Amino acid sequence: MWSLTQIPIVQAPMAGSQGPKLCIAVCEAGGLGSIPCAMLTADVLRAQIGEIRAGTGAPFNVNFFAHTPPTADPARDAAWLERLSGYYAEFGIDTAEAAKGPGRAPFDEAMCAVVEETRPPVVSFHFGLPSPDLLARVKATGAQVWSSATTVEEARWLDARGVDAVIAQGREAGGHRGMFLTDDIDAQPGLMALLPQVVDAVRVPVIAAGGIADGRGVAAALMMGASAAQIGTAYLLSPQASTSAVHRAALKAGRDDTTRLTNLFTGRPARGHLNRYLREQGPMNAAAPAFPLATGAITPLRAAAEKQGSGEFSPLWSGEAAPLASEGDAGAFTRRVWNQTRTVVGAVAKQTSA
Amino acid sequence: MWSLTQIPIVQAPMAGSQGPKLCIAVCEAGGLGSIPCAMLTADVLRAQIGEIRAGTGAPFNVNFFAHTPPTADPARDAAWLERLSGYYAEFGIDTAEAAKGPGRAPFDEAMCAVVEETRPPVVSFHFGLPSPDLLARVKATGAQVWSSATTVEEARWLDARGVDAVIAQGREAGGHRGMFLTDDIDAQPGLMALLPQVVDAVRVPVIAAGGIADGRGVAAALMMGASAAQIGTAYLLSPQASTSAVHRAALKAGRDDTTRLTNLFTGRPARGHLNRYLREQGPMNAAAPAFPLATGAITPLRAAAEKQGSGEFSPLWSGEAAPLASEGDAGAFTRRVWNQTRTVVGAVAKQTSA
Repeated sequence: MWSLTQIPIVQAPMAGSQGPKLCIAVCEAGGLGSIPCAMLTADVLRAQIGEIRAGTGAPFNVNFFAHTPPTADPARDAAWLERLSGYYAEFGIDTAEAAKGPGRAPFDEAMCAVVEETRPPVVSFHFGLPSPDLLARVKATGAQVWSSATTVEEARWLDARGVDAVIAQGREAGGHRGMFLTDDIDAQPGLMALLPQVVDAVRVPVIAAGGIADGRGVAAALMMGASAAQIGTAYLLSPQASTSAVHRAALKAGRDDTTRLTNLFTGRPARGHLNRYLREQGPMNAAAPAFPLATGAITPLRAAAEKQGSGEFSPLWSGEAAPLASEGDAGAFTRRVWNQTRTVVGAVAKQTSA
Repeated sequence: MWSLTQIPIVQAPMAGSQGPKLCIAVCEAGGLGSIPCAMLTADVLRAQIGEIRAGTGAPFNVNFFAHTPPTADPARDAAWLERLSGYYAEFGIDTAEAAKGPGRAPFDEAMCAVVEETRPPVVSFHFGLPSPDLLARVKATGAQVWSSATTVEEARWLDARGVDAVIAQGREAGGHRGMFLTDDIDAQPGLMALLPQVVDAVRVPVIAAGGIADGRGVAAALMMGASAAQIGTAYLLSPQASTSAVHRAALKAGRDDTTRLTNLFTGRPARGHLNRYLREQGPMNAAAPAFPLATGAITPLRAAAEKQGSGEFSPLWSGEAAPLASEGDAGAFTRRVWNQTRTVVGAVAKQTSA
């Protein structure tokens, strides 16, 4: 039985689209708020945790990436930039303006020091786990450590390394696939199949993620043995999210069949709505630089297109259930989803016990 | 509320792996049994319906394919056979032994006449619906007409044409994708996302399919608004199924991440476990003949390999939840799944009402 928060709903960390505001709203409503930290410096992380603590006394989750940084491959980066050079010409931008550096950093010494100093109640990872010594230091702070599994094999791997909970990330989920023992997106099961198999395979609580956007989905997750449900996309339309205008428009126009897994934006597969960039270059492209280096070449194009009000070169991250999302306050949404969960469970219980 | 059968569980029709025996066992247990008819002649169908009626007084479902037969393309067929000729040499078979003819036929005049004569309670279709006049004749018999939707758009299309129920087929499902308004397998949503969106989109009852193999999955489907749940793969290990030995072995060895969507066996995407044929030629291959003509070239190879006890050239159809399947009587399994459904719903109801 879930006891970490009043409501067994976790707000998914969504890098680039939210910070402490959304986290606080969900925490105050009784769910577990999160902040994405892969694009933050240690100083900004410290400040954001301070902001959360000032805004709520409830538990919260800080989320890090745990990927191995790629080996530099300037020839590949250059070839990719060349491939996109027609877009640069179209927007009147010099390819020399391509962003430098990785953009997203894995959990490291500096971040670990902030965790030790600030002691967040939950520390979650995506793309596996950090090195054993960093992991041990996080656990020594008393934090619960979670990580995402996209297959039963990954769930077992995490369980064996001492995580306190596994997030079973179904293929429906928006944003980056947490996959770390495979790179085959065709082998990523949907949540209906993945969740009960992960529940059977591990000793720790399982949090369900992917395609959940209302109380019906939360209830379904609980039926399959999840201790809690993680909701991401449905929060992106709330005023507490910093979702861009083009991203909000795409979420409102999107359908169940308009998202794709794409590696074009970062080098790793992530789910987002179709746009011109995906149609013309992907959605998957083996030539894209390794994660997170593909980010550099698209950054100026995205900025130029967004300046014109276009999301055709932006990552429009979204799960497959985006059409179920509704605008409105994130806290009220959290409470409403939980009320719907209880109503749905009660109604089906009445039917099936008759 | 489901009133067609005592138990809101539909046994999925599985061509090539079952007939009346499995159907009768499920019907007698209180679920809805089905027979697959795409590979039957009208005479055999008539005999099978007679066998079902002799075995049970309960409602049952006869399932047909509703595809448009392909235009003949001998050059494409020959090129495909040539591509597989190395395997023919390996097994010492002449490519002249490739099977002729389509192997699977769409619902037609002859089958419609059998339906009119035998009046099965439910007639379900895969790949859309037959022509309006054939559909009207089926409806005139008093049969419930169902068909599969793999997207919200397909569900709306079916609803507008007067089906009595929509089967929401999530990406997790084994066997052929029922897709008929799209051929893009990357745009096929998982059941967690698809099911509630289909429930919201149509006026008729929705049956959930894909990744459901036990009472947890059935309970989850009911939470998301399904009137019933369809289970396929989990029945393949029962003694009432005619599943081949190599297929049974693959189902027992399979994992959550070892199925793929492949068009290699028939020309249309279908989910099955990996084997040598998928690894070497696919799993998807744009050169494969159009459905169902790809069947011809693989048939002798499959037979030769199976004679040696090998499933490396056989369609090992399976959903992503195969590891949840258990051997044993199909009727007892049906009752057990429903008991588990009620237990799971009751337990979560107790937790969430507290």
